[in-house]
Amino acid sequence: MIGRLCVIGVGLIGGSLALALRRAEAVNEVVGCGRNAQALDRAVELGVIDSWQQDPAQAVVGADMVALCVPLRAMQPLFGRLAGALEPGAVLTDVGSVKVSVVEAARQVFGELPEWLVPGHPIAGTEHSGVEAAFAELYERRRVVLTPLETTSKAAHERVKAMWQAAGASVVDMDPRHHDEVLAATSHLPHALAYALVDTLARWDDSQEIFELAAGGFRDFTRIASSDPDMWRDISTANRDQLVAALRRYQGDLQALTEALEGGDDDYVLQVYRHACTERARFLKILEGRK
Amino acid sequence: MIGRLCVIGVGLIGGSLALALRRAEAVNEVVGCGRNAQALDRAVELGVIDSWQQDPAQAVVGADMVALCVPLRAMQPLFGRLAGALEPGAVLTDVGSVKVSVVEAARQVFGELPEWLVPGHPIAGTEHSGVEAAFAELYERRRVVLTPLETTSKAAHERVKAMWQAAGASVVDMDPRHHDEVLAATSHLPHALAYALVDTLARWDDSQEIFELAAGGFRDFTRIASSDPDMWRDISTANRDQLVAALRRYQGDLQALTEALEGGDDDYVLQVYRHACTERARFLKILEGRK
Repeated sequence: MIGRLCVIGVGLIGGSLALALRRAEAVNEVVGCGRNAQALDRAVELGVIDSWQQDPAQAVVGADMVALCVPLRAMQPLFGRLAGALEPGAVLTDVGSVKVSVVEAARQVFGELPEWLVPGHPIAGTEHSGVEAAFAELYERRRVVLTPLETTSKAAHERVKAMWQAAGASVVDMDPRHHDEVLAATSHLPHALAYALVDTLARWDDSQEIFELAAGGFRDFTRIASSDPDMWRDISTANRDQLVAALRRYQGDLQALTEALEGGDDDYVLQVYRHACTERARFLKILEGRK
Repeated sequence: MIGRLCVIGVGLIGGSLALALRRAEAVNEVVGCGRNAQALDRAVELGVIDSWQQDPAQAVVGADMVALCVPLRAMQPLFGRLAGALEPGAVLTDVGSVKVSVVEAARQVFGELPEWLVPGHPIAGTEHSGVEAAFAELYERRRVVLTPLETTSKAAHERVKAMWQAAGASVVDMDPRHHDEVLAATSHLPHALAYALVDTLARWDDSQEIFELAAGGFRDFTRIASSDPDMWRDISTANRDQLVAALRRYQGDLQALTEALEGGDDDYVLQVYRHACTERARFLKILEGRK
């Protein structure tokens, strides 16, 4: 049970965490923190938070759990604002989509990594942003990756794990670098591909006709290209090396497919399509298995 | 009003056409034709067709409208079977996703292109196949492209247009080559990209972990990779030149994005992401406008 939860960044991710914990009666009180007073008022109205503070150092007073639900580029400045302000015994976690860069940011600010820091990443979201988009079910049957450090205390790790489980998620632990590698493949690469595709087609001469003749397949394929571009620039640059490696690997395979198609090696094309179809069926079974 | 419709190939596309026309009371009788007697019996059970024949030349007896709803590679052999078998005054159309290759196949078989031939392409579908997947609403508010030829009679063109409108679709006319160019961008390219991505990730060492940590974004992005691989090999090879051109264009843009990311040109990355996000909002408005 969390006494007072401080959510810094009350948007889709932070707001949904608060809603899920309240619904599960796993938290007594939620204090919000953010830069936009109007949005924070709205979060109170929506029953997401009980009260708010704009100064992070004020917001964490009395909180036993602090969740940083802000864009990646805001992590390091916030660590700086929070250093020395957290209550003794408070646990600090974050939701950043890239983990090595968050750990590095903490190292820059704190030097030795604090035992009460538990980096995390809930693998959930929609293409929408803001507290209006928040809902209590967002984390149900979703995965949350925690990347506890060598210095992280077992108790802090357990408390963050219990928080996410109360929100409906299942928790897995990973090494930060390995997390970034896997997420580059499964999330950051598809986002880059979807953005690139819409950008490419929109610059074709007949883009109007292209959009007019596009249907459901195109809509689903490009859904993630409606995600917040600034946030995804941050994610892409924070995980630059892994994303570049994933892009290059994909480009090599795409080049081979293009050459096979151009050269009339239709069996190769069929082999790629069949393998993908079979493997996606396997993926869907894994996804089903979680429910 | 269609007297007797002959649907050759009673799967998702042909079955849904029959169901839509029956619901609209725009057809008196539907005769199915296909290679799988069990599936045709099932189509009768499901109320999709009234009766069936396995021989195409027999199936079209008495039909005033014939719709070829078969894979692209079956078009030319079928034109051969139907030459001389159609009733005088009957109209022949097809649903092939590529149009130049269908026109070429007709030219091979018929020499001069017949005035009663109206090539078409309903831009609708799901990742599922077969008559069990058919439903009457598939074409509601969807686009159907017709590519009438110089030799096509106005009356035949109007009858096919009326059929698709009765099924709920809006009809646009296009030049076959231009259709293939636009569809390469909006449909064939995304399918190739989705197949290539799932194939690529499935061959990574940690593919199990990748699939386990993939979420809704990945599921939607790869939905079209569950489409029938044989059918999509046919589409890809029938529209080879246009798809290769689209793939090369996309690869060039993806290469530029990768190099910008690698070289630290984060503004370029942001510009691509922002443009894509804005343009997808424009696409969604176009899609909404159809409803």
